[in-house]
Amino acid sequence: MSRFLDASKKILKPYQPGEQLNDKKYVKLNTNESPFPASPLAVEAAALAAENLRLYPDPEAKELNRALAEYYGVAPENVITVNGSDDVLDFAFLAFCGRETGAVFADVTYGFYPVFASLYNIEYEEIPLLQDLTVDVQGFIDAKGTVFIANPNAPTGILLPLDKIREILRSKPDNIVVVDEAYIDFGGESAVPLIREFDNLLVTGTFSKSRSLAGARLGFGIASEEIIKDLNTIRYSTNPYNVNRMTAAAGIMSLKDKDYMLGNAAAIVENREYTARRLRELGFFVTDSKANFIFAKSPDVGGEELYLKLKDRGILIRHFARPERIAEFNRITVGTREQMDALIANIEEILEEAHEKS
Amino acid sequence: MSRFLDASKKILKPYQPGEQLNDKKYVKLNTNESPFPASPLAVEAAALAAENLRLYPDPEAKELNRALAEYYGVAPENVITVNGSDDVLDFAFLAFCGRETGAVFADVTYGFYPVFASLYNIEYEEIPLLQDLTVDVQGFIDAKGTVFIANPNAPTGILLPLDKIREILRSKPDNIVVVDEAYIDFGGESAVPLIREFDNLLVTGTFSKSRSLAGARLGFGIASEEIIKDLNTIRYSTNPYNVNRMTAAAGIMSLKDKDYMLGNAAAIVENREYTARRLRELGFFVTDSKANFIFAKSPDVGGEELYLKLKDRGILIRHFARPERIAEFNRITVGTREQMDALIANIEEILEEAHEKS
Repeated sequence: MSRFLDASKKILKPYQPGEQLNDKKYVKLNTNESPFPASPLAVEAAALAAENLRLYPDPEAKELNRALAEYYGVAPENVITVNGSDDVLDFAFLAFCGRETGAVFADVTYGFYPVFASLYNIEYEEIPLLQDLTVDVQGFIDAKGTVFIANPNAPTGILLPLDKIREILRSKPDNIVVVDEAYIDFGGESAVPLIREFDNLLVTGTFSKSRSLAGARLGFGIASEEIIKDLNTIRYSTNPYNVNRMTAAAGIMSLKDKDYMLGNAAAIVENREYTARRLRELGFFVTDSKANFIFAKSPDVGGEELYLKLKDRGILIRHFARPERIAEFNRITVGTREQMDALIANIEEILEEAHEKS
Repeated sequence: MSRFLDASKKILKPYQPGEQLNDKKYVKLNTNESPFPASPLAVEAAALAAENLRLYPDPEAKELNRALAEYYGVAPENVITVNGSDDVLDFAFLAFCGRETGAVFADVTYGFYPVFASLYNIEYEEIPLLQDLTVDVQGFIDAKGTVFIANPNAPTGILLPLDKIREILRSKPDNIVVVDEAYIDFGGESAVPLIREFDNLLVTGTFSKSRSLAGARLGFGIASEEIIKDLNTIRYSTNPYNVNRMTAAAGIMSLKDKDYMLGNAAAIVENREYTARRLRELGFFVTDSKANFIFAKSPDVGGEELYLKLKDRGILIRHFARPERIAEFNRITVGTREQMDALIANIEEILEEAHEKS
């Protein structure tokens, strides 16, 4: 820390991304990336765009926004595209929270929400998940402030049905409800159509998961024209050219290659259900995930221990030490069937070792 | 504007990027892009990286930062890379300004500085340029707060010599001085080596101008290890994966292809001097620009009039209506010799028309 850092920033605890280790070749199941490559059409478009980098991107991202709007059946004025969905979440905290309006999110959810709030000195309330790790809908209804709900939630993977989202939207006519749908393509129903009904809804999404474009950085927001205007006010006050030309081109073709995404998502769902079943057979408690990851704990081996032992064996999964109620769980990205079989085989061996010791 | 926008954001006047018109084919001399394509090595590397987009970029950007550090003769711990240099300026306002520390910049300079300050409710002082449009060094020495100096300055193009930068650095041991070197490769001397002498110096730069990578979005900051740590605290609190894989790959190869950049910069300098001479012959007052643009006014045709007439003729240049003292000027990006000859020919015709009328 330098002596110049502003006092309000000295207490920041930045977001901790998943490990990116290079000391050996890992089976990487720790950052919810897709095991499948991006659409070949997207790759080709990005490579073509690389030949014309001397010009700035279109700051209005007209072509990309039109493709996204078409995909979701909304108007281009209802969408904003950004440099990864963290970007639009950042804008939402800046635009819709402040001295008068705090933020509300679950105690166990995407770990970036409290980071954004702290960065901008925004007060926030954490609504504890219920005993079964589902979202406390009544808690959100009773709370005051701008709501941030990851749906499906991370790291639990549990989906909140749209009628519950509706209840929360209805309870907060004077506040925005942000529904962060990073993982919606793996079995959830998107809240996007609700923007016609609710002028306080902002849905955010990403091309990093189901579209295999984590390395390109592309996220988006969908909402009323007025909300999108506000988010653009923030974008034009920070980084108007935030989506580069190659990523915009890749995004457009990824949207056009719809079946490719749907096929990959279906394969991941199948591998998820297979892996969940195998883990349950091994005694694990596994949540009903509708995301591209599994959230599971074993009665026989601790969360941190399992994480460390798998890491020793060249398999990276994600362990969150906090909050304590999830410390025995691990979040495991769903990969290919081969990766999942390797994971299960290694877990079987680790469990055997644990049984031998006891 | 939605009714949810935070009160403090309702007054924002976002940055206005240069026009991106598509109604016809323009000679585009309005956003300081390079007339030359990016290094073929950079293009090839970006296209190759497009084949591996399913994985997140390295959030530490180790390889890119190493290449940048090597180019500038500093340690990797002295650099941060970002999604265009607006990104690192944004971080600097957030990290090094606040309730106790305001910002200080010229009244005529990069128009984004007051936008950042307003976004974060940071008080700022504008130091008027001197009568000859040079920076008022004594004004900066006497002012209090975090200093932002574009060097060469925009839109004047005028360079502040390093000994003057030193004086300002020396006068502010308790404040950061940000030297924004977006245009340094066109005839200026970089302040980067001064980071060894001054722990309050942050130099920022971009790949958008001399490296022809505006469409890729790549900027950077160079400073003491502690300052870089602070900027990373902000980066990890907003968007840790801010530089995508394709851009990182292009950046690395652009740095390695040094002679290509130097050759392009030299050609632009030559075209700049040629164009400045031609404009002076036509009676224009032209500043002594060390950037890839020319800042000029004619005694015979108003600034806005010239801008509009050139636009009618398919040539886009940049006109700033405010502040009033520069309203008769235009900022003209230096393009190829052919583009500059087309510009001059059209200006000659416009001047003739003006003379005929009077």
